[in-house]
Amino acid sequence: MAKTTTISPLAPASFPDLPIIDGAEFAAVAAGVKYADRKDVMLARLAPGTSIAGVFTRSATRSASVLDCQEKIGSDSQEGAAIIVNAGNANAFTGRNGADATHAVTSAVATCLDLPESRVFSSSTGVIGEPLPHDKITARLDEMKSALSPAALKDAAEAIRTTDTFAKGAKAEVVIDGKTVRIAGIAKGSGMIAPDMATMLVYIFTDALVERPLLQQILTELTDLTFNNITVDSDTSTSDTLLLAATGASDAKVSQADGVFRDTLQGVMLDLAHQVVRDGEGATKFVEVSVTGSASDADARTHALAIANSPLVKTAIAGEDPNWGRVVMAIGKSGAAADRDLLTIRFGDVLVAENGWVSPEYKEEAGADYMQQQDLVIGVDLGIGSGQSKVWTCDLTHGYITINADYRS
Amino acid sequence: MAKTTTISPLAPASFPDLPIIDGAEFAAVAAGVKYADRKDVMLARLAPGTSIAGVFTRSATRSASVLDCQEKIGSDSQEGAAIIVNAGNANAFTGRNGADATHAVTSAVATCLDLPESRVFSSSTGVIGEPLPHDKITARLDEMKSALSPAALKDAAEAIRTTDTFAKGAKAEVVIDGKTVRIAGIAKGSGMIAPDMATMLVYIFTDALVERPLLQQILTELTDLTFNNITVDSDTSTSDTLLLAATGASDAKVSQADGVFRDTLQGVMLDLAHQVVRDGEGATKFVEVSVTGSASDADARTHALAIANSPLVKTAIAGEDPNWGRVVMAIGKSGAAADRDLLTIRFGDVLVAENGWVSPEYKEEAGADYMQQQDLVIGVDLGIGSGQSKVWTCDLTHGYITINADYRS
Repeated sequence: MAKTTTISPLAPASFPDLPIIDGAEFAAVAAGVKYADRKDVMLARLAPGTSIAGVFTRSATRSASVLDCQEKIGSDSQEGAAIIVNAGNANAFTGRNGADATHAVTSAVATCLDLPESRVFSSSTGVIGEPLPHDKITARLDEMKSALSPAALKDAAEAIRTTDTFAKGAKAEVVIDGKTVRIAGIAKGSGMIAPDMATMLVYIFTDALVERPLLQQILTELTDLTFNNITVDSDTSTSDTLLLAATGASDAKVSQADGVFRDTLQGVMLDLAHQVVRDGEGATKFVEVSVTGSASDADARTHALAIANSPLVKTAIAGEDPNWGRVVMAIGKSGAAADRDLLTIRFGDVLVAENGWVSPEYKEEAGADYMQQQDLVIGVDLGIGSGQSKVWTCDLTHGYITINADYRS
Repeated sequence: MAKTTTISPLAPASFPDLPIIDGAEFAAVAAGVKYADRKDVMLARLAPGTSIAGVFTRSATRSASVLDCQEKIGSDSQEGAAIIVNAGNANAFTGRNGADATHAVTSAVATCLDLPESRVFSSSTGVIGEPLPHDKITARLDEMKSALSPAALKDAAEAIRTTDTFAKGAKAEVVIDGKTVRIAGIAKGSGMIAPDMATMLVYIFTDALVERPLLQQILTELTDLTFNNITVDSDTSTSDTLLLAATGASDAKVSQADGVFRDTLQGVMLDLAHQVVRDGEGATKFVEVSVTGSASDADARTHALAIANSPLVKTAIAGEDPNWGRVVMAIGKSGAAADRDLLTIRFGDVLVAENGWVSPEYKEEAGADYMQQQDLVIGVDLGIGSGQSKVWTCDLTHGYITINADYRS
């Protein structure tokens, strides 16, 4: 696995000061799953009454822990719950052994924390195809139980990293019915680009009071606007997992009609999603692709992803080349509806192309100047409808090749 | 545009000695469309009675010359025909001006060669979004007419290159009804990876006697087995064009039932398609992805393209890493049906994974040894049906980034 010793140039200035979420406690240890000198296992304990929602990779070759989570996520149990995550080994494509290893971990956590096993969710991230050394994890459960603390979410964020160059956290507060609701989340992932399949793992905690079916509905809707709209390299992990736990400790009840919680949560999810892109392997540019005026929102997303996944567009961005021709190409290949002569393309505020050709007011120097920014917006209007979508990505650089063409070690 | 001064390590040893195709003549000149010191325009004249079939990019932003060809290709005219191609300017995304420029060229060729304009097909390849200097082309038509020769197909192959590192040609002979039929074809393209959108252009000539509707049917079927199954970087050109001209001069009539001509033509098309991959920008490995045992042929192709387009798979190949986990990942994300526990994966003859895990007989050294070959085969059996597909690609290297992250110049 390639070493990533330098922090991404796109990293936030610092890790946020995450709030305490009443009803949620955390611990992390160095269990030696793969890494020698760092914490690599996190444990979260959630109080009785916590609602848990989750979304997972749609990969047909998803990992044993993902399959296990999917079986458990629909339960309306009011008992406490736990989340256990290891880095260094993905427990993916490990045959029957994979399910056995997941069961070994979740049953041990259940016993240790006196929970039903159906309320213990696990994730694994790292190397694929190697047996998960579950004994190394279960041997440390008592120690983690003793260390559980509401203040240790940052430790957990550190422990779940693989090739991430920085730990990722986000937070928000919102007042609902006169009560303050807090949201804190952590994530790991550099897209899906780390050797042997990095995975994106996200854990978000809130003290809002939300019934599980509603929590799941909100999470699913927001995932389509946030994590499902980021791409580093178009490769999809076997292990992507996003769990959202609402402890209810604030006693602020979220109802179907309440858009405030939803909007606040969306902000946290978008923040974490953007941090994943900002840690894209080899990334030097953060890029928003904003598509409007398409026949439908789905078409807009198809166009935006075609642009964001195009190696020619991504290398042009790396070269600070305002190469709008490649944007036209990506729109053309996407398969969604487009009329060449109605396209409008902007780089930031710079109008580049309109009416099927380069804009008469466009100056190449203006485009070139703009492309030197670290954060870029590529705007495309199809001119044929009211569909819209935003997708976030990074550039494709020598750094990506260097990291991923290294032989596994 | 990045300079490609060295010939691809995957290039054939030499350009083939192409046969004369009775009824077809060629010429090439240095018209200065963009390049200073090389031939950049080719002209082909085809005798009366020639059938012409074509397939074109499905891009929604396709170029003016592609749109013009598509309008003309369905005609059953028995008059002569011409093909004119320039390199250096794609005449794509040039608005109304693009159609005017195409008309200027094809009408001038029609006048010069005394043909109806509906029988003059044109292609343009190179920079996008710049007006085509059609005067530079039409000024040289008389000179090209005088130079037309049945032996100049190699000159034409040289003239249509953009960032190609070698000219591409292929040939075959077959006896039909006691008469010898010859096929000769040329192609340009390094995938779709050259700066400002390279395009794939292919021109194949034969003296077989084939009625146009049958010729088109054969061409369309074979394209799905050859050119539509290659990928360098998943980016699709605005200008891809494949024209097949059958002069009938051999008097060997091809009938619906005749598989010999079809098979022979398929060999020529596959040869040219492979040469395009072998000139993939930065390529150091030629890779066949062979998928069997899927639910349908379409599913097999979806899996094969997911593997062949995965940046993680392609960088692993560049690193000579037998990283079968990334192959599993690509199958999982493809969207086509797969059962993790029924997958079998082979690198060449080396059995790597089966039954949802690494094969007990697999030795990492055997995989690593195999990956050092220049030509590789990744074999995947889904174990759930009889669908199959083959796709060809190359690796993703620093060379690709270097070439495509250069600012246009």
